[in-house]
Amino acid sequence: MNVEVIVSALRRVREVKPLVVNVTNYVVMNNTANALLAVGASPIMAHSKQEMAEMMYFAGALVINIGTLDSVWTPRMLHAVEQANANNKTVVLDPVGCGASAIRTETSRQIATLAESLIIRGNASEIIALAGDQGQSKGVDAMDSSEAALGAAEYLVRTYSCAVVVSGKTDYIVTAKGYSQLKNGHAMMPYVTGMGCTLSALTGAFAAVGEKTGLAATAVLGVAGEIAAEQSAGPGSLQVNILDTLYNLDVEMLTQRLIMID
Amino acid sequence: MNVEVIVSALRRVREVKPLVVNVTNYVVMNNTANALLAVGASPIMAHSKQEMAEMMYFAGALVINIGTLDSVWTPRMLHAVEQANANNKTVVLDPVGCGASAIRTETSRQIATLAESLIIRGNASEIIALAGDQGQSKGVDAMDSSEAALGAAEYLVRTYSCAVVVSGKTDYIVTAKGYSQLKNGHAMMPYVTGMGCTLSALTGAFAAVGEKTGLAATAVLGVAGEIAAEQSAGPGSLQVNILDTLYNLDVEMLTQRLIMID
Amino acid sequence: MNVEVIVSALRRVREVKPLVVNVTNYVVMNNTANALLAVGASPIMAHSKQEMAEMMYFAGALVINIGTLDSVWTPRMLHAVEQANANNKTVVLDPVGCGASAIRTETSRQIATLAESLIIRGNASEIIALAGDQGQSKGVDAMDSSEAALGAAEYLVRTYSCAVVVSGKTDYIVTAKGYSQLKNGHAMMPYVTGMGCTLSALTGAFAAVGEKTGLAATAVLGVAGEIAAEQSAGPGSLQVNILDTLYNLDVEMLTQRLIMID
Repeated sequence: MNVEVIVSALRRVREVKPLVVNVTNYVVMNNTANALLAVGASPIMAHSKQEMAEMMYFAGALVINIGTLDSVWTPRMLHAVEQANANNKTVVLDPVGCGASAIRTETSRQIATLAESLIIRGNASEIIALAGDQGQSKGVDAMDSSEAALGAAEYLVRTYSCAVVVSGKTDYIVTAKGYSQLKNGHAMMPYVTGMGCTLSALTGAFAAVGEKTGLAATAVLGVAGEIAAEQSAGPGSLQVNILDTLYNLDVEMLTQRLIMID
Repeated sequence: MNVEVIVSALRRVREVKPLVVNVTNYVVMNNTANALLAVGASPIMAHSKQEMAEMMYFAGALVINIGTLDSVWTPRMLHAVEQANANNKTVVLDPVGCGASAIRTETSRQIATLAESLIIRGNASEIIALAGDQGQSKGVDAMDSSEAALGAAEYLVRTYSCAVVVSGKTDYIVTAKGYSQLKNGHAMMPYVTGMGCTLSALTGAFAAVGEKTGLAATAVLGVAGEIAAEQSAGPGSLQVNILDTLYNLDVEMLTQRLIMID
Repeated sequence: MNVEVIVSALRRVREVKPLVVNVTNYVVMNNTANALLAVGASPIMAHSKQEMAEMMYFAGALVINIGTLDSVWTPRMLHAVEQANANNKTVVLDPVGCGASAIRTETSRQIATLAESLIIRGNASEIIALAGDQGQSKGVDAMDSSEAALGAAEYLVRTYSCAVVVSGKTDYIVTAKGYSQLKNGHAMMPYVTGMGCTLSALTGAFAAVGEKTGLAATAVLGVAGEIAAEQSAGPGSLQVNILDTLYNLDVEMLTQRLIMID
């Protein structure tokens, strides 16, 4: 993997303007739709079984985010994944809060098992919880670091034949071929709700144009967030400025800022 | 129709502060409530059958937006329209994504048929899809232009005895008496999610004070969006600045900027 | 009550970073989550019965906001309150629109009756409606002033053994021991949707660290809103700047600005 993969993926998103269907949580719907528009994609926020087959026929990718899951929405998520499968579209799974309740862990695993083409994007504790006992190996004291979830991510890659993005101070892009590290971003970003959800949505946009590892989305949001945070007095401004920066991000800014270890 | 209609409608909204009930999509609830507050109206975001009769008794208008429709929400929308009818209140229908799925087209038509006093606000492709075969006449090559939907809009005006707003680079306000064109707005506005939904919400505020064509809302948002966009580095800022501009918009700014062809 | 109570509560929120579970309305989920993050707390926006027992075991407090209630969500709210009770966690009730429909009044009373440790936060008309006939005593001509709800608030304090915050130009913090008045805030704040909901969410954060009167949250948001409004061109900017100000608020700013009458 290298910078050219990222740059050409960003160019393709802006040319193709891929439709990305999002079955996501109530908290972030506005922000993730806006982030998809800002990067050049076309968001569809839809969840009804009454139309998902039609939506997935036209769409380039499906993003499933379990942030506000319940017994009404979970069957809709599973139905949407089935429709993505039927249309050979990639599913991005954001297992929000996986490990915080049994139902989140179970539902995440159900979705991961069902999806035929899959990228999982979560933070360290979510990835570790999703992997369960087999994935845990680095000990509790490193729980907050994304490195601690590397073993779990590798387990998920093998188990679900997927790519995994572990977000954190360092982001890990884990595939069957190994992993890359991205070190962009800013300490203020976790003070904006749904920053990870935004990354998952953008991962869908890039998957829709063929970049199915999560690398390009992670690079683009990491760099944009870093630039935006430097201009922001606090997390309110940052939420706004990230959209402006995604909209204006050019290849030069991206390549100059990018810190990647392959 | 002339400028005075628009100006006096804006004055009335700010004096009357009309209650506008919104049964709308999850994505835009915050923004459209804020836009209604900024223009001087009082938003109520409510959808429950348990209270809609009471809400519509007090409210000045009803806005129905099908953006995130499903089998649970559609009956609530129909019930809300019935309550609007029972209280002689105008319904603004935003047929979001009409044509993108069969259920959206069907539901939009059901609502349009049911509403006794109706304004429909959509973009060209939604208006064309809502009209169906009878409304299409201008050919596929003009599909992205609002002019292409003029025939469809006129068909809807006749069929549902309603007013129709077709939003686009040029906005068309179509009534039984003919149509007006408004040419304000800015190319950055489609990069903010739910800009059309905001227009539909504002259309409800103006309908509540007796301006039942969509003209005043379209003029106000077009001018406010244009001013706001000129001060915005990107769509994140624009979403914020539109609210500030709506709040501060005075009659002089409005009349100086307005580009209307009757 | 004095300034030191407020200052030390803010310090504790930032140290402890309490988890606050929010069963709230669709309109404000993003903003209230961001306000909780900005003040230093950890928001969980969750509503499913499938996980509420687990969530309330870990959480520091529960915020119930009935803003977009319906027959599906109300049982979830009641279930969440039961789980808060089972775990000895304080419930903050925001009776949004209480009095605007019978179901809002009934549901608010049901929740207030059920919660074992309770803070109620509303505006004057909501507090008066919640108290019903027994609480009304000051006459209709003062309906818009928070002072008019003081009798109703005192009635609620006695009836539900709770604390009550009446928000308005003057905020009243009412407990069994008497009341305090806070006179911060800004006339532009009601032009941002969900400002009261944000106060209720912050009240949950402070309750989670032991400040169970609503005083500290009201002081912090009043001062932050006042500072933010002075720097804002309109309500769009204000919504953003309040988050920045909450994030940056220091003890000196807070104590210098605070206008409190014990």
